[in-house]
Amino acid sequence: MKLARRKAQTPDGPVTRIIAADRDGTWFDIRTGLRRHLLRGGASQDAAERIAAATVPAGLSAALAGGAAFTDVVARVLDERPGEAAVQDPVLANALDPVSYRDFMVFEEHFSFGYRWQNKAVPDIMYELPISYAGDPLSFLGPDDVIPWPGYTQRLDYELELGIVIGKAGTGLTPDTALDHVLGLTILNDVSARDIQAREMTGGLGPSKGKHFACVTGPVITTLDELPGDGLGMRARVNGETWCETTSAQMVWSVAELVAWASQGELLRPGALLGSGTCNGGSTVEIDKKLAPGDRIALEIDHLGALDNTLGEPGPEPWWPPVRERAADGTASQLRFLR
Amino acid sequence: MKLARRKAQTPDGPVTRIIAADRDGTWFDIRTGLRRHLLRGGASQDAAERIAAATVPAGLSAALAGGAAFTDVVARVLDERPGEAAVQDPVLANALDPVSYRDFMVFEEHFSFGYRWQNKAVPDIMYELPISYAGDPLSFLGPDDVIPWPGYTQRLDYELELGIVIGKAGTGLTPDTALDHVLGLTILNDVSARDIQAREMTGGLGPSKGKHFACVTGPVITTLDELPGDGLGMRARVNGETWCETTSAQMVWSVAELVAWASQGELLRPGALLGSGTCNGGSTVEIDKKLAPGDRIALEIDHLGALDNTLGEPGPEPWWPPVRERAADGTASQLRFLR
Repeated sequence: MKLARRKAQTPDGPVTRIIAADRDGTWFDIRTGLRRHLLRGGASQDAAERIAAATVPAGLSAALAGGAAFTDVVARVLDERPGEAAVQDPVLANALDPVSYRDFMVFEEHFSFGYRWQNKAVPDIMYELPISYAGDPLSFLGPDDVIPWPGYTQRLDYELELGIVIGKAGTGLTPDTALDHVLGLTILNDVSARDIQAREMTGGLGPSKGKHFACVTGPVITTLDELPGDGLGMRARVNGETWCETTSAQMVWSVAELVAWASQGELLRPGALLGSGTCNGGSTVEIDKKLAPGDRIALEIDHLGALDNTLGEPGPEPWWPPVRERAADGTASQLRFLR
Repeated sequence: MKLARRKAQTPDGPVTRIIAADRDGTWFDIRTGLRRHLLRGGASQDAAERIAAATVPAGLSAALAGGAAFTDVVARVLDERPGEAAVQDPVLANALDPVSYRDFMVFEEHFSFGYRWQNKAVPDIMYELPISYAGDPLSFLGPDDVIPWPGYTQRLDYELELGIVIGKAGTGLTPDTALDHVLGLTILNDVSARDIQAREMTGGLGPSKGKHFACVTGPVITTLDELPGDGLGMRARVNGETWCETTSAQMVWSVAELVAWASQGELLRPGALLGSGTCNGGSTVEIDKKLAPGDRIALEIDHLGALDNTLGEPGPEPWWPPVRERAADGTASQLRFLR
């Protein structure tokens, strides 16, 4: 099964509607399918619309939070295949509005390069635990959206990653149980501002401003039962030229291990997004290329489709924090509170 | 003004209700106050309840997202002081259910110690830019909640911080405009698992498992107009013993600068929470103390109240990722995908 969200027009502006497709590729609008089912069961128009809107809201995370109340409806619509709910050539929004976003770093070539790029040796921790940072779940874009270019960066970059979508709440999972909590996989572009990221990482926190301004997922989420277990081909194209061609089968930690580790001592919620980190060769830093405003980034993963975005024009000159004056002992000359 | 949320019982279990108090300290239930106002304007019971619930939802972030539709109601209720909406001795929930959470590190004694603790010199970036990491907005607890002790840590710790609550959306702010977007300040306990945090930070990302399992805010949010501009006394007590006594007036970057920097290239949303980082002496690592299950942590900040929590019993033994075997060249001997 594939899950996505389409854009639909209403008198109050555009809305997103959850759609699903079986292996044959026909998309069905799930809320429409449920409303039709409720009407056939004797519901009034008002009641059918009210129940359908509550069960199949605009957000996929909110829908998944309904548990079987949502997943049973999806399964039934794909089984009944109601013509009224079929959608031709949907315009896709971002498939997932994640409730949280944690990005790991499990592709060896990429992280080895990354540490060398920071003049550091690869630390042992990379082979001891999957490490991660949290991103901003509110800054997600979808297919064909323009990626904003913050005024504070000269070096905007894409990162081609696997996105792991949690479908069912879980905590204290093991690799044997973890995949039961995964709805499916999607393409993830963890957009990065390399210059500010490199500076932030000298402090050992984050990254933060280097990452939080934008992230892209989609176009669809493909459930695990439709995916081969031995790896997916991954490609990045910039303005039509192939800049990366690799496979997902080169992870130091598996999808099941990442989910299991993320769930220790925490509740993974439906709609949580875990990123794999950049695949080998999956950003411009390690291939010594640079992006420019207007560049077209196309990320493809077998069975997950293609995620296309254009880079926007640089934003306005930002306010930069003034560098602090320091006393002879290296400490700040002046301390502050509100202003 | 102070804003908080109280716990109320219903036939369907406990709910949270937004309350506010003026300088005299009397709390008013804002939804009740609005419902009463609507009834006096001729609304039916049903309509008054429906409009009041939509305008003053259970979550403070959702309420703040209404803009003036919410803040005007709060101001009117505190002006009208309706007896029906007055609340005696409310049982407080976490004041804020943040939409996002970013924690800075701006207290010099704490970060200097932190770097030394990691055998590192204080990097120049600490005086060039405010750096930060993102935490999990879904793991927030409130006053009197038991702080979970993950099974993967031997070294649980508190961090006494200022929490900065965004009240009005903003992007591209400067220190001159930033404070207009701040609703107020609250106490923040950025709970930390020191052993796993220290290991994660050798990789330069995050921290993640060292932080995301829990965070505490509350008990109230005090608006800036009620706060002195020259600093707030901050204290931490463990089992009644004072372990930290300091002031908020020792920040390398001011509240206004943190908000302005956070807003560059990003939309800060109502309900976003920014942390100051640990105040000087505000965690156990730099005072060479250790916490144990059952310890009572009381964090106090002048004008913001006291935030009391007890540490829970250690959780179950976690699943630990097996350390990866490595070939002679240091790379992983086996790579993976799903399992």
